[in-house]
Amino acid sequence: MVTPDPSRSSLKQGLPPGTLVHIGERRDEPVTISVITYDEQHYDERCAVAPESLPDLPDGRYTTWINVNGLHETGLVKAVGDRAGLHPLTEEDIVNTRQRPKLEEYDDYLYIVTRMLRYEEGAVRSEQVSLILGPSFVISFQERAGDVFDPIRERLRLGKGRIRKEGADYLTYTLLDAVVDGYFLVLEEFGDAIEGIEEEVLASADAETLQAIYAAKRELIELRRSVWPLREVVGALERGESPLIQKAMRVYLRDVYDHTFQVAETVETYRDTVAGVLDLYLSEQSRRMSEVMKVLTVIATIFIPLTFIAGVYGMNFRHMPELDHPWAYPAALVGMATVAIAMLIWFWRKRWI
Amino acid sequence: MVTPDPSRSSLKQGLPPGTLVHIGERRDEPVTISVITYDEQHYDERCAVAPESLPDLPDGRYTTWINVNGLHETGLVKAVGDRAGLHPLTEEDIVNTRQRPKLEEYDDYLYIVTRMLRYEEGAVRSEQVSLILGPSFVISFQERAGDVFDPIRERLRLGKGRIRKEGADYLTYTLLDAVVDGYFLVLEEFGDAIEGIEEEVLASADAETLQAIYAAKRELIELRRSVWPLREVVGALERGESPLIQKAMRVYLRDVYDHTFQVAETVETYRDTVAGVLDLYLSEQSRRMSEVMKVLTVIATIFIPLTFIAGVYGMNFRHMPELDHPWAYPAALVGMATVAIAMLIWFWRKRWI
Amino acid sequence: MVTPDPSRSSLKQGLPPGTLVHIGERRDEPVTISVITYDEQHYDERCAVAPESLPDLPDGRYTTWINVNGLHETGLVKAVGDRAGLHPLTEEDIVNTRQRPKLEEYDDYLYIVTRMLRYEEGAVRSEQVSLILGPSFVISFQERAGDVFDPIRERLRLGKGRIRKEGADYLTYTLLDAVVDGYFLVLEEFGDAIEGIEEEVLASADAETLQAIYAAKRELIELRRSVWPLREVVGALERGESPLIQKAMRVYLRDVYDHTFQVAETVETYRDTVAGVLDLYLSEQSRRMSEVMKVLTVIATIFIPLTFIAGVYGMNFRHMPELDHPWAYPAALVGMATVAIAMLIWFWRKRWI
Amino acid sequence: MVTPDPSRSSLKQGLPPGTLVHIGERRDEPVTISVITYDEQHYDERCAVAPESLPDLPDGRYTTWINVNGLHETGLVKAVGDRAGLHPLTEEDIVNTRQRPKLEEYDDYLYIVTRMLRYEEGAVRSEQVSLILGPSFVISFQERAGDVFDPIRERLRLGKGRIRKEGADYLTYTLLDAVVDGYFLVLEEFGDAIEGIEEEVLASADAETLQAIYAAKRELIELRRSVWPLREVVGALERGESPLIQKAMRVYLRDVYDHTFQVAETVETYRDTVAGVLDLYLSEQSRRMSEVMKVLTVIATIFIPLTFIAGVYGMNFRHMPELDHPWAYPAALVGMATVAIAMLIWFWRKRWI
Amino acid sequence: MVTPDPSRSSLKQGLPPGTLVHIGERRDEPVTISVITYDEQHYDERCAVAPESLPDLPDGRYTTWINVNGLHETGLVKAVGDRAGLHPLTEEDIVNTRQRPKLEEYDDYLYIVTRMLRYEEGAVRSEQVSLILGPSFVISFQERAGDVFDPIRERLRLGKGRIRKEGADYLTYTLLDAVVDGYFLVLEEFGDAIEGIEEEVLASADAETLQAIYAAKRELIELRRSVWPLREVVGALERGESPLIQKAMRVYLRDVYDHTFQVAETVETYRDTVAGVLDLYLSEQSRRMSEVMKVLTVIATIFIPLTFIAGVYGMNFRHMPELDHPWAYPAALVGMATVAIAMLIWFWRKRWI
Repeated sequence: MVTPDPSRSSLKQGLPPGTLVHIGERRDEPVTISVITYDEQHYDERCAVAPESLPDLPDGRYTTWINVNGLHETGLVKAVGDRAGLHPLTEEDIVNTRQRPKLEEYDDYLYIVTRMLRYEEGAVRSEQVSLILGPSFVISFQERAGDVFDPIRERLRLGKGRIRKEGADYLTYTLLDAVVDGYFLVLEEFGDAIEGIEEEVLASADAETLQAIYAAKRELIELRRSVWPLREVVGALERGESPLIQKAMRVYLRDVYDHTFQVAETVETYRDTVAGVLDLYLSEQSRRMSEVMKVLTVIATIFIPLTFIAGVYGMNFRHMPELDHPWAYPAALVGMATVAIAMLIWFWRKRWI
Repeated sequence: MVTPDPSRSSLKQGLPPGTLVHIGERRDEPVTISVITYDEQHYDERCAVAPESLPDLPDGRYTTWINVNGLHETGLVKAVGDRAGLHPLTEEDIVNTRQRPKLEEYDDYLYIVTRMLRYEEGAVRSEQVSLILGPSFVISFQERAGDVFDPIRERLRLGKGRIRKEGADYLTYTLLDAVVDGYFLVLEEFGDAIEGIEEEVLASADAETLQAIYAAKRELIELRRSVWPLREVVGALERGESPLIQKAMRVYLRDVYDHTFQVAETVETYRDTVAGVLDLYLSEQSRRMSEVMKVLTVIATIFIPLTFIAGVYGMNFRHMPELDHPWAYPAALVGMATVAIAMLIWFWRKRWI
Repeated sequence: MVTPDPSRSSLKQGLPPGTLVHIGERRDEPVTISVITYDEQHYDERCAVAPESLPDLPDGRYTTWINVNGLHETGLVKAVGDRAGLHPLTEEDIVNTRQRPKLEEYDDYLYIVTRMLRYEEGAVRSEQVSLILGPSFVISFQERAGDVFDPIRERLRLGKGRIRKEGADYLTYTLLDAVVDGYFLVLEEFGDAIEGIEEEVLASADAETLQAIYAAKRELIELRRSVWPLREVVGALERGESPLIQKAMRVYLRDVYDHTFQVAETVETYRDTVAGVLDLYLSEQSRRMSEVMKVLTVIATIFIPLTFIAGVYGMNFRHMPELDHPWAYPAALVGMATVAIAMLIWFWRKRWI
Repeated sequence: MVTPDPSRSSLKQGLPPGTLVHIGERRDEPVTISVITYDEQHYDERCAVAPESLPDLPDGRYTTWINVNGLHETGLVKAVGDRAGLHPLTEEDIVNTRQRPKLEEYDDYLYIVTRMLRYEEGAVRSEQVSLILGPSFVISFQERAGDVFDPIRERLRLGKGRIRKEGADYLTYTLLDAVVDGYFLVLEEFGDAIEGIEEEVLASADAETLQAIYAAKRELIELRRSVWPLREVVGALERGESPLIQKAMRVYLRDVYDHTFQVAETVETYRDTVAGVLDLYLSEQSRRMSEVMKVLTVIATIFIPLTFIAGVYGMNFRHMPELDHPWAYPAALVGMATVAIAMLIWFWRKRWI
Repeated sequence: MVTPDPSRSSLKQGLPPGTLVHIGERRDEPVTISVITYDEQHYDERCAVAPESLPDLPDGRYTTWINVNGLHETGLVKAVGDRAGLHPLTEEDIVNTRQRPKLEEYDDYLYIVTRMLRYEEGAVRSEQVSLILGPSFVISFQERAGDVFDPIRERLRLGKGRIRKEGADYLTYTLLDAVVDGYFLVLEEFGDAIEGIEEEVLASADAETLQAIYAAKRELIELRRSVWPLREVVGALERGESPLIQKAMRVYLRDVYDHTFQVAETVETYRDTVAGVLDLYLSEQSRRMSEVMKVLTVIATIFIPLTFIAGVYGMNFRHMPELDHPWAYPAALVGMATVAIAMLIWFWRKRWI
């Protein structure tokens, strides 16, 4: 379904604020929780952790990354959230998967909402990812298994690059960076799709082309809703004064900001391009129709007078002296040909043929 | 009636400012006043209270919520307003039901105007709700009975959640939250309606579809007028410095602000979508017309020349030697078929058939 | 004449700044000056006052309101202006009746330009009203007799409401308020006119409808030019630091600001609506044309092939064996009917009939 | 030539900054320099002054106005500029006649670029005027002889008004004022032209009308490029802190600012109007085409079936019993008339005729 | 390829930040490095320098300009960057050739990204140029050999103008100035191209014209992406507080800012112009189609009734008394002529012919 949808549904109507109601697509897979704790020397990864056996947060010694896949079991989400000391409104927002990207600063954590995009089976799939950045931990909540974070897990495992040397803020940065990098992939696919539509418009536009243009337009509206607020989120992180983010981090955040800026700008350019393609489609159609009309007009205006002449000599009046003349028939044919040729010359001078 | 209407009518022309004149739909129902006083232990609810027997405001011990249904008896409204010490201009605004949402800070109360939306019989109904937030009281003025506040009354009665533990500012927040939640319901209905129009456009667009698109466009303009200023109102409340609102309240107001933001954004998206649907409608229509023209052109350009040929041999010239030839008729038929087939091939190569 | 016109015409070209040249419609009526002086107890009203016998300004004891009707006798305007100590550029602006609303602060007076609108004979009439707010006097300059201030004069005479208790700033406020209230009347008429056009578009749009839409569009552009700057003027008055306006006045000015905001917003909504009506007009026209084309196409594509068949059997070839068959004529008719019915079924399935 | 043109051409490519290259239309007239020196008592005017015999700047006692007509002899411009101590970049800008209006503050002078507009032979002619405001001198550089400053020279000669009592800043103001006043004349002509186009559109629009609309659109884009930045320039002058401009001057500059604002606004209104005229043109054309189609459809749908009937009875089948009936011919004619009348009624009810 | 492309491709997906991956067109030419060191007396130029033999940076005595042509050998770029002490993110950005212009301030250098445009073979070629401004050095990274800097090298060699007297900041300015000057050349070509399209539209618009308009539109979108951010970059440099740029430099940067402003404005004007050309194209097409329709309608409505009359007298009814009358045939011809002439007069009065 592509219609933009309000983020809070009738389910919530009348419930006190802070009540956890999962809003989004129904899912059946079990919710899984994985925990990674690390510092420069140490690395530990546990999958399918029960909420009771989660480590204490903050840990003090290590940096901890808890990843939750699946938000439909609100009890589990609440258990994890309470463990980390999240505000009820934050927990409510985590399970409401139709939000716009935003940054909220609480006293002892930052709450970041982003949307992770993937191109699946010819359509953009959007999934909400909530990030909690605490003093030495990061919690990420995803709607379902499968994400763009595998290379980060790999780098953590191998201790490649700076990632193991830095703390939770750097991890948050790499997660955001991975999300934004994913956008570029989606945009690449999108760019190809638009180019395809464009060629189609110039070759043989039909009703499907129109619907493809319209669909692209709508997906871009959707994309925009994911991208623009994200830019503000990253900008606010960069400019922000939060003690959870170190000064040295800002140059990296500026880099992510730059990338979101590029993504946002590309989306705008695509919007312009799609609007241009629609104009092109309409102009092409009007040009073709104009061509159709010309053909009709040329054929009709040549033959209608001729048919009239033939009709005149087909009348049954008794006294039509020209009918009896031996050269009358060839003369009539020549006359008709003359009319036709005069017409053709006129059309040719008007550049219709 | 859907036309946007100026909020002050000819009735007021020339009256001194502060004169209470009810502007809005005429109603007959009696005005009813209900009063709820509560604190954590205590709860008292009275219906159909006369203005004389209203409690003192502020009460001191309890939080008081006075709800007035119906604004057409301006005397009653004035009685309630004077009791609460409202400025004459505030009273004037309360009974003028065609205002845009706004927040006005007076010395000892905040005056909030919002619009409560409901979807009734396929159309959006908008009702003005004025909220007065005083030191320990809230007064709500509605245009008529029936509202989105019943779940709040229920929570007050049952003492569920934090509502009984908090004061008038929290009550104001829950009322605003309920109003904004109501918008999501309206938007859901609206989204369905737009999707319906869309399918209709692609299946079989006619004059009614066009009018439906146009009506949706106008309702969205109306919606926008309710939603955008409300965003500013809630934003101003959140950022505001009013001593009537406690610091701890701000996180809740930020949440409402977020929701109004989402509503506003959804309205914008719908506007884009409806504009897109109109484009689609126009393109579809032009595409269909183009198809109609092609059919006409194909039929006409094939048969007009043939009819001409038939006309030639229908002429009554005495000396038309070919008429007497035994194979002339079949030859003429074959000639005609050749012309027709040549035309068809030409059309086929032009992709018209 | 509706074309927007530059405010300074060729008449002024090359004159030194400060030269009073009346720019606007030529008038013949004599200029009349009326003076009202009042305080809470006292009230005095004089009509047709000569400029020589004007009271001293500021008066000290009373509040004075001088109203000048007619600006074409620049000598009189200059006499009044000099009496009140106006800057030459202010006097120049007063007689130049094609200005946008503005607020100018001089050392000892405020100069406010507004436009008073009235709906006369189906068109919006706009008249420039200049207000001078001095320490205890107000001077109003109008283009001609007849205004929206009569109820204010009445309230002054009767001492109704607060008006006699307050000073020149309150009088300025009531004058502005009366001007803005007049806008609502104009907008009501305008709203009705737009609704009329709308119905016409859906019933039977023709060239006049198009011109009506276009005229409405232009009048709205004009209206906008009056309303938007007025909003800024009132906003500047409200926020301003001028000692001529008391603090307690601000709440009233906020009210006027609110009303100008509503007017401005309504004008914008009307612009959107008129744009929508134009779209509707164009779509309706294209839909109707499409219908016309379908009728032509259906009739033509049914009968053109039939006429061809008739033409074939009207040919005069000697050897056309089928002509002699006794059942040939009925068979031909049945064949034609079959073709026609097949065509009709095809059209019906294409939803053209 | 109307295409907007970059201000620095290929001529400059690769030259060091500060190299004087004249960019603009080639001219042949000689460059002429005139010098006016004045104070309240004294007035002296010299024409065709050689750069060597220019007075010292600043003069100390008198105010000096040097006017240079013609910029194509860059040597002369450089001589004058060096005399006045201008920065090389300023001199470079003076001879580059394709700049947007701007204000640049240097340590001891202000550099103002404006465009002087005149309506000549049905087209807007734009000429760059550079003003240098120094401590007690003004230098004006124009592209060619002929300007809007003659009334100022006259006022200087006669000592009329304040001009001889004030210094170089007042002179600068009067020059700017004269330039802006010239805009009003151009706008008046333009308004008339637009009104003419409008009437043409409603009477008989053809290809020339379309090109006139398009030309007006482009000229307005050009005008806008002259007017909008000028507004900023004058605004910056008014708000500026330059010691070269006395405090008392600001009220005059505010007046010029006002006028530029009006000009800018009128240009915007004209843009809206021209856009509206284009819409009107397109709608009119589509309405007329629709009318053409209706005529075709009515004629064709009436006569095509009749022609078919005539064709049927023109067939040469031997056995067509109705042909022999004495009343058959009148019956056929009556039948045809019935079909035609039925069609006409149908069209009339559809409001096509 | 013209599609706007995301700046980071799938190649980078999952790599740690700071990893150098060349993004852009693949190239084969070898990377070449040239070094120029100079002060007022001294000038030294070396081509094809190996990264190992680069001078120390900063040099202390001389100003050094290192130019790198080719970014596809990321090792070389890294070597140069490390030598100059660049941040890994800067190096990453240098080799990513699909960035928007930007300015980044690091502790001891400024990083400027611009795009150098050239018009080659009828299309705009865009190349990324990164400039590093250090204490006494400038490093420029280009995508390939061939640039707009040759005149600067010439001026350095000859010691013409101020360039050898000033430091690295002046060199940066001249490089930026040369880049912006290059834009003017591109815009000139572009302006010519647009004028060509315009003439084509008015003469004989066809499908190629439409595609040319569309292509121009897209290239302008691209151009805009290069120009607008550059304006901000130069503006930030001018306003900036960086100690790397001397105060005296600001007036030069203001000049470049001015030029970028002009370029940006010209691009906007071109966008308006191209939009206008598209409107013109569509209007022209609709006008021509309308003309085609008129011809068809005139011919068809004249001859269809005549053909019908001829058809009537071609019927084979036995009893058609008028057929036997000796003057019937001429009378029928006269009747037909009368009908035709009446039609023609009617069309003429409707201004269709």
